[in-house]
Amino acid sequence: MEHRILDMISSPADLKLLTDEELGILASEIREQILLTTSKNGGHVAPSLGVVELTLACHSLLDCPHDKLLFDVGHQSYAHKLLTGRLGIFDTLRQYKGMSGFPKAAESPYDVHPSGHASDSVSVALGLAMARDLRGGDEKIVTIIGDAALSGGMAFEALNHAGQLQTPMVVILNDNEMSISRNVGALATYLGHKRASREYTQARDGLQSALEAKGDWGHGLVDFGRNVKDSIKQMIIPGEMIFEKLGFLCTAPVPGHDIAALKHTLRVVLDAEVPVLMHVVTKKGMGYAPAEQRPDVFHGVGPFDLATGEVKKSSSSAPKYTSVFGKALVREAAANEDIVAITAAMKDGTGLNEFAERFPKRFIDTGIAEEHAVALASGLAIGGKKPVVAIYSTFMQRAVDQMVINNALPDLDVVFCLDRAGLVGDDGPTHHGVFDIAYTRMIPHMKIMAPSDEAELVHMLHTALSLHGPVALRYPRGEARGVELPDAPEVLEVGKSRTTREGSDVAILAFGRMVQEAEGAADILAEEGVSVRVVDMRWIKPFDEDAVRRAAMECSLVVTAEEGVIEGGIGEGILEALAANPPAKVPPVLTFGIPDRFVSQGKIPLLHRELGIDAEGIAQRIREKLASMKSEA
Amino acid sequence: MEHRILDMISSPADLKLLTDEELGILASEIREQILLTTSKNGGHVAPSLGVVELTLACHSLLDCPHDKLLFDVGHQSYAHKLLTGRLGIFDTLRQYKGMSGFPKAAESPYDVHPSGHASDSVSVALGLAMARDLRGGDEKIVTIIGDAALSGGMAFEALNHAGQLQTPMVVILNDNEMSISRNVGALATYLGHKRASREYTQARDGLQSALEAKGDWGHGLVDFGRNVKDSIKQMIIPGEMIFEKLGFLCTAPVPGHDIAALKHTLRVVLDAEVPVLMHVVTKKGMGYAPAEQRPDVFHGVGPFDLATGEVKKSSSSAPKYTSVFGKALVREAAANEDIVAITAAMKDGTGLNEFAERFPKRFIDTGIAEEHAVALASGLAIGGKKPVVAIYSTFMQRAVDQMVINNALPDLDVVFCLDRAGLVGDDGPTHHGVFDIAYTRMIPHMKIMAPSDEAELVHMLHTALSLHGPVALRYPRGEARGVELPDAPEVLEVGKSRTTREGSDVAILAFGRMVQEAEGAADILAEEGVSVRVVDMRWIKPFDEDAVRRAAMECSLVVTAEEGVIEGGIGEGILEALAANPPAKVPPVLTFGIPDRFVSQGKIPLLHRELGIDAEGIAQRIREKLASMKSEA
Repeated sequence: MEHRILDMISSPADLKLLTDEELGILASEIREQILLTTSKNGGHVAPSLGVVELTLACHSLLDCPHDKLLFDVGHQSYAHKLLTGRLGIFDTLRQYKGMSGFPKAAESPYDVHPSGHASDSVSVALGLAMARDLRGGDEKIVTIIGDAALSGGMAFEALNHAGQLQTPMVVILNDNEMSISRNVGALATYLGHKRASREYTQARDGLQSALEAKGDWGHGLVDFGRNVKDSIKQMIIPGEMIFEKLGFLCTAPVPGHDIAALKHTLRVVLDAEVPVLMHVVTKKGMGYAPAEQRPDVFHGVGPFDLATGEVKKSSSSAPKYTSVFGKALVREAAANEDIVAITAAMKDGTGLNEFAERFPKRFIDTGIAEEHAVALASGLAIGGKKPVVAIYSTFMQRAVDQMVINNALPDLDVVFCLDRAGLVGDDGPTHHGVFDIAYTRMIPHMKIMAPSDEAELVHMLHTALSLHGPVALRYPRGEARGVELPDAPEVLEVGKSRTTREGSDVAILAFGRMVQEAEGAADILAEEGVSVRVVDMRWIKPFDEDAVRRAAMECSLVVTAEEGVIEGGIGEGILEALAANPPAKVPPVLTFGIPDRFVSQGKIPLLHRELGIDAEGIAQRIREKLASMKSEA
Repeated sequence: MEHRILDMISSPADLKLLTDEELGILASEIREQILLTTSKNGGHVAPSLGVVELTLACHSLLDCPHDKLLFDVGHQSYAHKLLTGRLGIFDTLRQYKGMSGFPKAAESPYDVHPSGHASDSVSVALGLAMARDLRGGDEKIVTIIGDAALSGGMAFEALNHAGQLQTPMVVILNDNEMSISRNVGALATYLGHKRASREYTQARDGLQSALEAKGDWGHGLVDFGRNVKDSIKQMIIPGEMIFEKLGFLCTAPVPGHDIAALKHTLRVVLDAEVPVLMHVVTKKGMGYAPAEQRPDVFHGVGPFDLATGEVKKSSSSAPKYTSVFGKALVREAAANEDIVAITAAMKDGTGLNEFAERFPKRFIDTGIAEEHAVALASGLAIGGKKPVVAIYSTFMQRAVDQMVINNALPDLDVVFCLDRAGLVGDDGPTHHGVFDIAYTRMIPHMKIMAPSDEAELVHMLHTALSLHGPVALRYPRGEARGVELPDAPEVLEVGKSRTTREGSDVAILAFGRMVQEAEGAADILAEEGVSVRVVDMRWIKPFDEDAVRRAAMECSLVVTAEEGVIEGGIGEGILEALAANPPAKVPPVLTFGIPDRFVSQGKIPLLHRELGIDAEGIAQRIREKLASMKSEA
């Protein structure tokens, strides 16, 4: 690792001094560094390895941060981070108070936008281009977007708009045919045909010579003016590219690990006076055999053994909520052939692998298309099926309107399984699922549950499937509590809580994962002689008003605890119920939840502690409140 | 009007007995009926007039409700309603407790889904098709979608998915080149080219003979089997249609007011074994000269003079909030060249006409593409511009994720102008803007204001433009209060309320339009000797905690009043603030808002009364509460 070129790169400007051969060596060094760090910290290995050459080619020709380089879904930005002054903090990747795993403007002027959710970068890039044009600026604007992100309708909206405006910008289609899991949709099939085409093979093999035959494009292009457009037209396969219909000039597929080829094409498209789609074919996980062979596993991965590619096992013996859900749904589906499972490009992530294998006809992957997934569910429900939509809490933010209009208004039988609800840890603020309580609770007809352990999840899924109307389950990322799973799932009574600890001084009304923290707080306070009742509320909507009223009547302090934002959260809902229909005695109420700010990345226990919603934090604030109540009395 | 065919149609089955000539007569009768009713009730005149023949053709060949006919944006469904047993209640169109202006499954088994927001019907139709295939059913599934709705990315997501699955369904592209205002985007340009093409002219003129030349398609097609696909291929213009790339078979454009031509093509496509896009060219407002000439005015219109087409003026002398906003923004933009206005296909509806004329380079209409509009704004803000995004409250539900991730997380200077916030009246549950307080309040960094009159709106827009970070304004549909507009707008202090009525018994903390109702309630209660303070809170986030605490300390009852859902609303937020930081005395609190159910259509005062949030309803509940407090004391 001595005398690395990488160590001499303090900014992308330094790349301009390197030969293509040196850039190739640098690519290897970047891969080594990414693997070294991610094997310890975990991270998005395969996406980042796939765009090393592409990132190098872009930064060696662009003049960032004056020019703008965007990443659609920024988990592919590791090479970018290494080239933009963050080698020194790279070992803190995804760690608490460390470097974000995604672009973050507050971290670097080279990071343009927070790109954690797919398909948005063409919109942002177009906004930058329009701002440039209004200002009379000259910066280049480039975004790298994966083929899978193109299935998101928002990308289409932006391409359609950009194609009309005809302002210069470069959309690099990073076509790796994989994305998180296998790509879906007619567009994917279409791109597949293009990749397999004779034209691509010819283009790949002959691009450099073809370009050279057109003259010394590398230097004199600015003078070509309008001819640039014609030059690009030489590269495209006429009438073949769907994006042409939308007003983009399109290149033939470029081999995405050939720095010289990439630079040659980039030079041309960067000088175009119209929007260009540059089609680049890359290999996810490129350069690291385990990631090339299992790009789905190495999409986002925990620490792994660098030599073998073996992913390090969690020390916990408890299963993950995701896999408990997946197994429970398979069991339900075996007994009820109306059940259909829908995911949006997250088959593995939502635990639906086994379902997809067992019931391929009843498994639907829409690709990255949450809006469509949710409205599709309403069609299935109208058609007599029982759709179960499994989407991460954070991505379901994309389909709030569809939940309201397509599912809740006609009161259809759709089950929403919001995985990764609550804090998610290393992925940080773009991925924390902290808003779903607010955005589901506001919807009439919606019922909402939150399991406090994996057995509860099994019962709640069964319950949700037995109910009429839309039902949402929210459950967290990661390991469950390790309790025994039920032999047969039960139908829970709607709106009924269960008390897991009896107590008379303080009542904690806890939701989901917060039940465990509440019990921890109860243990701590018990040693101090405070008797704490813990109620596993089970239901967010409708919630157990009787239990709330009993808590108010019988205890001198009521506490609510949820892993979601306080604004619009269920703690407020409980306060409203107490105000609307007050029991004879209403004691002070403390609400625990996510405060009104974005939460950074880090291990979940660290974040819980920072936010004061771990057992100790909850106990501490209760202790203080009781003390102040005593001193006032 | 005697001996109308229309009066003899009790269900679509009756249409099968009619000749094409009789269907033509029926089309005229339907137009007359639509005009007769909408001239009194108002309604979506131009869209409904445009699809009369198309609806007749569909219902004369389909077997609904076994088959499914969907309308993407259901305001074009008036002919459908007249043909499906609702002639007798048609005069109650859009009236309180009357017939909905949109499809409504609870109203009729012929109405499939609530289609109030554009671009969702292909998803729902695909869901129905997949349910059919799983069940082994044979029903036909047809959706009619406008060309403008295709700019919504969700429609693309669904087409992409359907094209891959290759299950039979018919998407009728109702191409009227207009939609609500002029259509935008590269796709629109592309469709324009197709309409103008020689092929279309030929197709329009020669379709019938061409079809007849292929044989008697009207009857024997079922036997053709696979040949249907080939038959359709005869109709298409190879390589021309973008939708072909997505896996759809596409027809050449069909003249949309020629019943025979429509039926001929429909017969073929209904028997296809693959998804088909049937391109139909219609004229918005067809058959009524004023609507043909001014399809934008007659898109959604109030009562009008049938003979002249003159739209009846409101009796109010107060301007509409929308136009006050539009004028205020023009003034701001004249003074600040960084201001850019963005709308999503609602230039007129959001009051941006004058802005668009005065500052065409700074006016952006994305078409129906709310997600893109909001993310585009973030690009403009990063690029140094000051984007003002004007979108109806109900449609902004489509872009919640973009508000969170693209704008709030990086804390960008974007102003959201949520028009039609609160109840909207005649359009009913798909259009009421009752969720925005909940879905904006949950977002960190977001500031939110609600003006209580038009002068306040002017100040608040000015204030929003002066602030850092995302700011949302919510203001209602319809007339403002008629107060004098300020000569120069002021920057309001963040988080400061203003007291509009002094009082000591009860404090009403009111937001937006509820201030007026609160003042009315104060007047009523004053006559009964109850002294009511009315606080125009101005700010929803951050709200005036001092004013809340003073109200709690000084009055014996605190009341919150907002025109939004209670779940997640600001009333709950105020309760949370009182719980988190309780003043020495916390009196009972009543929260007024929209209860946890969907609200039907009707004039706004009627709805306010039904929900108990008009002045009398607020006074009544306060009166009862005071009485019960007295009896308890």
